[in-house]
Amino acid sequence: MTSAKHAHVVGLGLIGASVALALGEAGWRVTGDDLDPDVVALALASDVIEASDPDPEVQLIIIATPAGVVADVAADYLARFDDPTLIVTDVAGVKGAIVHDVTSPRFLGGHPMAGSELRGLRGARGDLFQGCTWVLTPTSTTPADLYGRLHSHLREIGANVVAVSSADHDRLVALASHVPHLLAGALMNQAAEAAREDAVLLQLAAGGFRDMTRIAAGDPAIWPDILFENREAVAATMMMLEERLVALRTAVQTHDRGALEASLTSASMARRQLPGRALKSEEMAYLRVLIADRPGSLAHVTMTASEMLVNIYDIEIAHAIEGNKGTLLLAVDVEQASRFMDALRAADFEVVRET
Amino acid sequence: MTSAKHAHVVGLGLIGASVALALGEAGWRVTGDDLDPDVVALALASDVIEASDPDPEVQLIIIATPAGVVADVAADYLARFDDPTLIVTDVAGVKGAIVHDVTSPRFLGGHPMAGSELRGLRGARGDLFQGCTWVLTPTSTTPADLYGRLHSHLREIGANVVAVSSADHDRLVALASHVPHLLAGALMNQAAEAAREDAVLLQLAAGGFRDMTRIAAGDPAIWPDILFENREAVAATMMMLEERLVALRTAVQTHDRGALEASLTSASMARRQLPGRALKSEEMAYLRVLIADRPGSLAHVTMTASEMLVNIYDIEIAHAIEGNKGTLLLAVDVEQASRFMDALRAADFEVVRET
Repeated sequence: MTSAKHAHVVGLGLIGASVALALGEAGWRVTGDDLDPDVVALALASDVIEASDPDPEVQLIIIATPAGVVADVAADYLARFDDPTLIVTDVAGVKGAIVHDVTSPRFLGGHPMAGSELRGLRGARGDLFQGCTWVLTPTSTTPADLYGRLHSHLREIGANVVAVSSADHDRLVALASHVPHLLAGALMNQAAEAAREDAVLLQLAAGGFRDMTRIAAGDPAIWPDILFENREAVAATMMMLEERLVALRTAVQTHDRGALEASLTSASMARRQLPGRALKSEEMAYLRVLIADRPGSLAHVTMTASEMLVNIYDIEIAHAIEGNKGTLLLAVDVEQASRFMDALRAADFEVVRET
Repeated sequence: MTSAKHAHVVGLGLIGASVALALGEAGWRVTGDDLDPDVVALALASDVIEASDPDPEVQLIIIATPAGVVADVAADYLARFDDPTLIVTDVAGVKGAIVHDVTSPRFLGGHPMAGSELRGLRGARGDLFQGCTWVLTPTSTTPADLYGRLHSHLREIGANVVAVSSADHDRLVALASHVPHLLAGALMNQAAEAAREDAVLLQLAAGGFRDMTRIAAGDPAIWPDILFENREAVAATMMMLEERLVALRTAVQTHDRGALEASLTSASMARRQLPGRALKSEEMAYLRVLIADRPGSLAHVTMTASEMLVNIYDIEIAHAIEGNKGTLLLAVDVEQASRFMDALRAADFEVVRET
């Protein structure tokens, strides 16, 4: 290699500019662009980017535009740069349509589960992704090598990478993020209406109510597109939740103590078991997994890890000199290693643990 | 007066023992009792109470037992002490049935909006009520003088007192506390079920999801009684919320951007306007309100304040030497004073602002 690693970020809002800062701090040469020339000027002046045009040898392009234009922007860059090792990724919060539309094997969808009260370039921080979960959505055509390189790059900026299919991603964020936002909004609106009759309500709104409505304060403008983009998963999740609420109400109305206690007890236990977000990175186990060096094998391994909630801290592909085999080098939590190895072996992978 | 003020607390759990500590720190002589002799022994040993039996001249009895026995315990104490100036109050979280059952004008229902992660005597803190909202539920037969004295006593331990009818209280806590608890539980259970299929869900559960499910971690055992006790208000509030959720889901499914934007925007504005809990106590305005010295007048003034979200920091009754008139001395937020005076004058009260 003659030059430093070089990345280009398209769209310099909160997430895009934070990625630019984080990669810059990790030693990358970072260029970037934005539709708004004032934003580009500010990004140049504040050293978020070095230039607005990518060099021909750019290795990583991160598309951080609004979700609706990601597919078109990705197609443009994929057409413009023909390096077969180029990685194009994005950060949009809904993945199904984008992953469906951008079929190039050089594109791999992503979604960092990070945010901030702040918005735009001025809110950007180089440490925004430290300890954050960054979802990648490989498909059966994603080359294992490309996945492994992007995973490593994201580890460089502190993210915990998990692999999920785009369909699973969209279903899961409906439940973890989109529906909670609608719930918080509904509760807040109902309270606001009641408070117009009885202003004292707001003085009775203690910590629990405040916790439950906090996310409703967020910028309302960004939500309709997210919700429309993910409408099927959001609607299905809402319907299941509506059924649960009707069942709970019925238990209250019919004095069904057993049903209420069972529901509240399981919720309490589940909430107490919710893992902390930042997993500690010491005490890793290093595994070598023999894989077929073709699309799909890597995805199988990483999705098995995700399904088992095994965090992959580091990943590397060691290609065999000949033949179609490669070796996947994985670093995982030492406490999860045995269970993970058993699952991989059950799926006919050869696994060796390094000592 | 020959002796210090003397209060007796029945039930020495988290709230009861915290009231005992707070009154003790405010200079009261405090006795207290509990069904559990070990709790009484611990309360005596740790100076939470001075003795387990109240003196005959006890001025304030606080019933902090489980809600289901408050009415019976109150009746016992009211029969045992015939001092017409005795105040008996409680701290139960649902007020309708208790206020209906205990008809003595010496009883005034209460509900401190305070809690803790901890439970029982060992979690008690003398500063638990500093800045907390403490609801009192006067009726048309509550003597103004008794209300004024209890209000002053609660101010001594740092509480912000608001007056609400018991029916309004129950309706409002359904929305501010009981239904949020059911919502958090339903969301947590749905996520826990989804996580059994896709454990990675828990890694996608970011800050908003954590905020919204936090209260679901609470002790499940206390909730069925609260929910049953307040079942009508809880069921009515749930049904309204269910309708809102169906409307939001329909807006998502039918791509109704206007409806979604309107709903999310009003929720965002309302959440941002939610007042901070602890109102600052400097810069008060002092008002004198001429009232008929009979039950009902004081309640009218305090409920007007509550409805207007005017916080009464201090209250005192100055009785006229003859006749049936008295003067109410109120301290309110200086910024709210004019508006509050206008409302009282519109209701035919004579109001003078002190300079």
